[in-house]
Amino acid sequence: MLSFENDYAEGAHPKVLQRLADTNLIQQPGYGEDEYSRSAKEKIRAACRCPAAEIFLLSGGTQANLTVISALLRPTEGVVSAATGHIACHEAGAIEASGHKVIPLPEYHGKIRAEDLASLLDDFYADPTHPHMVSPGMVYLSHPTEYGTLYTKAELAEIARVCGAYEIPLYLDGARLGYGLESPGADVTLPFLCEVCSAFTIGGTKVGALCGEAAVFPRGAPKGFFTHIKQRGALAAKGRLLGAQFDALFTDGLYFDISRHAIRMAEELKRGLQARGYRLFLDSPTNQQFVVLDMEEMAQLQKRVRFSYWGKLDENRAVVRFAVSWATAPEQIARLMEILDETKKARENA
Amino acid sequence: MLSFENDYAEGAHPKVLQRLADTNLIQQPGYGEDEYSRSAKEKIRAACRCPAAEIFLLSGGTQANLTVISALLRPTEGVVSAATGHIACHEAGAIEASGHKVIPLPEYHGKIRAEDLASLLDDFYADPTHPHMVSPGMVYLSHPTEYGTLYTKAELAEIARVCGAYEIPLYLDGARLGYGLESPGADVTLPFLCEVCSAFTIGGTKVGALCGEAAVFPRGAPKGFFTHIKQRGALAAKGRLLGAQFDALFTDGLYFDISRHAIRMAEELKRGLQARGYRLFLDSPTNQQFVVLDMEEMAQLQKRVRFSYWGKLDENRAVVRFAVSWATAPEQIARLMEILDETKKARENA
Amino acid sequence: MLSFENDYAEGAHPKVLQRLADTNLIQQPGYGEDEYSRSAKEKIRAACRCPAAEIFLLSGGTQANLTVISALLRPTEGVVSAATGHIACHEAGAIEASGHKVIPLPEYHGKIRAEDLASLLDDFYADPTHPHMVSPGMVYLSHPTEYGTLYTKAELAEIARVCGAYEIPLYLDGARLGYGLESPGADVTLPFLCEVCSAFTIGGTKVGALCGEAAVFPRGAPKGFFTHIKQRGALAAKGRLLGAQFDALFTDGLYFDISRHAIRMAEELKRGLQARGYRLFLDSPTNQQFVVLDMEEMAQLQKRVRFSYWGKLDENRAVVRFAVSWATAPEQIARLMEILDETKKARENA
Amino acid sequence: MLSFENDYAEGAHPKVLQRLADTNLIQQPGYGEDEYSRSAKEKIRAACRCPAAEIFLLSGGTQANLTVISALLRPTEGVVSAATGHIACHEAGAIEASGHKVIPLPEYHGKIRAEDLASLLDDFYADPTHPHMVSPGMVYLSHPTEYGTLYTKAELAEIARVCGAYEIPLYLDGARLGYGLESPGADVTLPFLCEVCSAFTIGGTKVGALCGEAAVFPRGAPKGFFTHIKQRGALAAKGRLLGAQFDALFTDGLYFDISRHAIRMAEELKRGLQARGYRLFLDSPTNQQFVVLDMEEMAQLQKRVRFSYWGKLDENRAVVRFAVSWATAPEQIARLMEILDETKKARENA
Repeated sequence: MLSFENDYAEGAHPKVLQRLADTNLIQQPGYGEDEYSRSAKEKIRAACRCPAAEIFLLSGGTQANLTVISALLRPTEGVVSAATGHIACHEAGAIEASGHKVIPLPEYHGKIRAEDLASLLDDFYADPTHPHMVSPGMVYLSHPTEYGTLYTKAELAEIARVCGAYEIPLYLDGARLGYGLESPGADVTLPFLCEVCSAFTIGGTKVGALCGEAAVFPRGAPKGFFTHIKQRGALAAKGRLLGAQFDALFTDGLYFDISRHAIRMAEELKRGLQARGYRLFLDSPTNQQFVVLDMEEMAQLQKRVRFSYWGKLDENRAVVRFAVSWATAPEQIARLMEILDETKKARENA
Repeated sequence: MLSFENDYAEGAHPKVLQRLADTNLIQQPGYGEDEYSRSAKEKIRAACRCPAAEIFLLSGGTQANLTVISALLRPTEGVVSAATGHIACHEAGAIEASGHKVIPLPEYHGKIRAEDLASLLDDFYADPTHPHMVSPGMVYLSHPTEYGTLYTKAELAEIARVCGAYEIPLYLDGARLGYGLESPGADVTLPFLCEVCSAFTIGGTKVGALCGEAAVFPRGAPKGFFTHIKQRGALAAKGRLLGAQFDALFTDGLYFDISRHAIRMAEELKRGLQARGYRLFLDSPTNQQFVVLDMEEMAQLQKRVRFSYWGKLDENRAVVRFAVSWATAPEQIARLMEILDETKKARENA
Repeated sequence: MLSFENDYAEGAHPKVLQRLADTNLIQQPGYGEDEYSRSAKEKIRAACRCPAAEIFLLSGGTQANLTVISALLRPTEGVVSAATGHIACHEAGAIEASGHKVIPLPEYHGKIRAEDLASLLDDFYADPTHPHMVSPGMVYLSHPTEYGTLYTKAELAEIARVCGAYEIPLYLDGARLGYGLESPGADVTLPFLCEVCSAFTIGGTKVGALCGEAAVFPRGAPKGFFTHIKQRGALAAKGRLLGAQFDALFTDGLYFDISRHAIRMAEELKRGLQARGYRLFLDSPTNQQFVVLDMEEMAQLQKRVRFSYWGKLDENRAVVRFAVSWATAPEQIARLMEILDETKKARENA
Repeated sequence: MLSFENDYAEGAHPKVLQRLADTNLIQQPGYGEDEYSRSAKEKIRAACRCPAAEIFLLSGGTQANLTVISALLRPTEGVVSAATGHIACHEAGAIEASGHKVIPLPEYHGKIRAEDLASLLDDFYADPTHPHMVSPGMVYLSHPTEYGTLYTKAELAEIARVCGAYEIPLYLDGARLGYGLESPGADVTLPFLCEVCSAFTIGGTKVGALCGEAAVFPRGAPKGFFTHIKQRGALAAKGRLLGAQFDALFTDGLYFDISRHAIRMAEELKRGLQARGYRLFLDSPTNQQFVVLDMEEMAQLQKRVRFSYWGKLDENRAVVRFAVSWATAPEQIARLMEILDETKKARENA
């Protein structure tokens, strides 16, 4: 069945897969010492214009979040996150299992605001009982957010300024970073992230790879981070699997090209939905589109196409998510539009 | 440079890679709900002759050990392991980071003995202060061990009997299981493991896959094990990556065929070494061979071929490891022998 | 300086101290095996009319919460609590440090509502992504709450009913339980708590003891709970210190008598405040009273009497807490009233 | 029954108890801000001749070990300890529950040796796979040890030198410190401990207090240590309980006087045992004496006096422990000798 359920429904971009095939039988050392990992890291450093960055290639998003966050916090510190942040919800308590509280901040379509962060920090240290509480030891945000929304440079700079004033690291979860960088109008770039973040990830799994997230530490990683990775079960024996994929993604701008393609598909999807009178739940500039459907229509559509149920809006309506990716073909968007039209017609005739 | 450094120096077996390519653009649900994972699990169940087995596909060995062990133990329990067990040494404290002690048992070339286990358990419960101590809550062993050695059916059955008497689970780490199953003279089989173990893994990473370990629970997994996997950062969004690989490995006996090939290569290596008068540190029936070299010869060889330094034997001699795998070609063994001969000649002429 | 800062400003009730003195040099076994602990537990069981209850004596409140909660939860479960619950705020992340999320519920002057709990549980299991999230594995509530408020029997029964429907334990933190049991109009009793709770504590530290909380498990404690206590550093070598105190507190109803005394003092305090026109922030039936003061008056009062700052109400006004206890003398209330009058007069003259 | 079972069979020294009574109803702030805690810390600093020391008063030994160790280690570090160290055995995995491995070192009647420590550290960093292993991040030792044995200044200085070379903290568990400081011939002093240790405890529970250990950080505590204490459930609301006791113990040298008394009692016990031909298992210069008894004699003695079974020596003989303390009276030693004589006579007549 046609699927817009998520942005990990296919395998890898053909060029990524080809790189795995081309290098397959060349002997390489393990644990990230292979030449592909080294090359990938060089290319990422170049794309970031940050020669001093330390980079580590990890398999998955929760794994990357868990490993980076637990390595950056002291035992009595917690991580501040939007209440809807991935670490606060859908990572099954991975952060808490490593001993740390996720401290929630109000969210605005998945985003946090510098003023809320400043209030939280100001209030915390103004409260005389604060030594009895978990201290906010770092800030987590996702970009794009879980709602597909994006921060501007100005917003991130302001959040980073608050973090700086309290000397706590800012960590950006870029599981879908490509789609954020290539969104029209987006002004955030890799070099800019190196300026404002203590750490961020460049997601591969949802942007053309079979698996893999690159964790970037522009000003160096915490002491012994390699051992942290091992301890968290996140060290791939065949680091080449991650190295070769990221090497391919950062050769000739593939990562950016395929992200741009996804954005074009998202725009086509959005136009098609709006032309048909569908209400968008929010204005997402990236590859995830949230649509309001009435319950009956949702039920009928579910028989012919896969998408994600996001929650109830009211008694009769639901919010659903359609995701596109580097792999989405224009034909798939067109087919979806046909299905929408046919479903509508069937309902009118009913 | 020619490498016998480990059994993960290459990518995947060509048929495994081909399966990834063949299925690459077919849309599939995430998180292990894809049809390849379902098919792989069916095939593994069939190979195990254990239709009730619950199976989960994880990316790596430390990850699998950490996830299974922390899900099986209660907070005040620890896991018994050979002092040389992988979890006791080279997993960077992953088990302790999940809150549990690794309780060491004497090892004999990497193996534990049922009588030592029985003593440990008997003594523990005979000690009136035992409620002040971590209780032995499960047993971990690796097969093949870190020294390439193997248990017999009788040995495993006896260990399982002791576990049963104390009602604690037996978990077998099969990171190199294929090489153990296909070693000539070995009597342990997958169905037998289903009888004696509460859980075991079938290693893919070192036996033909890019990554992946199948965790098998013959009598069912702990409650909520899927969530455990997520919490430990071990849930692949693109479960298809693991599913397609294991599906290929368990099609037409590929897993066993390539394991057998490695064993033949190991035997050729062993014969070649013995014919040249090298002393084996121990008699390994699997794909890892441990050889005694004098320090000078080791240094000269290291310039031309990669292998692992395992430790000092005495002032003048070291133990080194040569590993072969599914990917080792007869030509590589032949080339190694030439290098050994040339090095020897050069030393005699010196 | 006269202090209403908290309910632990003095040592122990004289009878409790006397018991320590009387038993001081009698040799006793350690770790809670002393005869005073045994006697105290018998008396608590009798007061609970629950002969099957298992009881453990621990030193402090955070320690008791941490030990009980981490023993009751599985690794992927969290504990539901009012957002203002002690474990959610002022225990420095003790629960998270043991690996578990505190799942917040709306609070109404410190209390949770059964309907909110039911919604949280219903919504959780209705959400198809719930296996990716921490599951609500138990419910925590405090009685009296951090705001001095109390549950009724009907309210607790309804919360227990929801817990029962989802088969999760209900745990009641009774750090100030005496003040809740003896509040006029309160209908909750120890036997009732044994009916509705899987576990609850009877606080000693704030109700007449130097230290000590009794953890009561009406239907038995989790397996190996003694070892849990030890692991959490909560096992007193001289268990007699806790035993003798609780034995004194549960002899001839001392625990209830001194709680009633505190309630009378609280009522006198409340009457005095209301007679002087002070606004109570909320209607607390127990030993903590929350008063609205304007900032200037607060500053002047702070020079002459200790109380707790609870937070800002608006630009000009703060909420402060006056706590009384078993140790509060009528003269102290009278003296406080004089200070209030003198401060008022001074302000009027200024 | 007469008991030599342990050194915590009685309550507190009468002067300690008196101090609690004298201060009982004086209002004090909580959480260690009381004047008794401040005074106690001043007196301990004076006894240590270390005005810069930061001192925290905790309730129990496991609690103190757990809190100090988890605050000093980074997540990938473990603590080196004698295999018989309290943290390695009888603390129920408290250290592992906080995420850290206890790395065992050979023990010699409970003591570790600087050369073994140096080897462990040298070998660790010489092993090229060390980034895959838990790094030795601090050293734990107990003084007196679990066997009553003592380090000399020279031995501790040498251990500290090795720690210094690897820049890892040395932590000394002084649960029975008084008995070590006052043993005749002992050259270790509090000021010396301040020189060589990063942290150490001064045990109260076994040396005259109802409960309480003072954690001393001669060169300052880890950042936020107060919050660590809270997080571990180790912060007493009524810090006065600990403060008043340590204040009494460090007034007019009480701590040292009562320790000396115990040592005299131990010497009398030892003389009495030796005069009667008993074999001491080892030569302990402190308050714990280990004696070899044949099984039958042990069984008969157990009917009349309490002592601890320490383990089997061979088929017919056991090692048992007789402990004395600040509370032991000469009459108790005399009575024990009578019982020994009577038991012997009865056996001879049988």
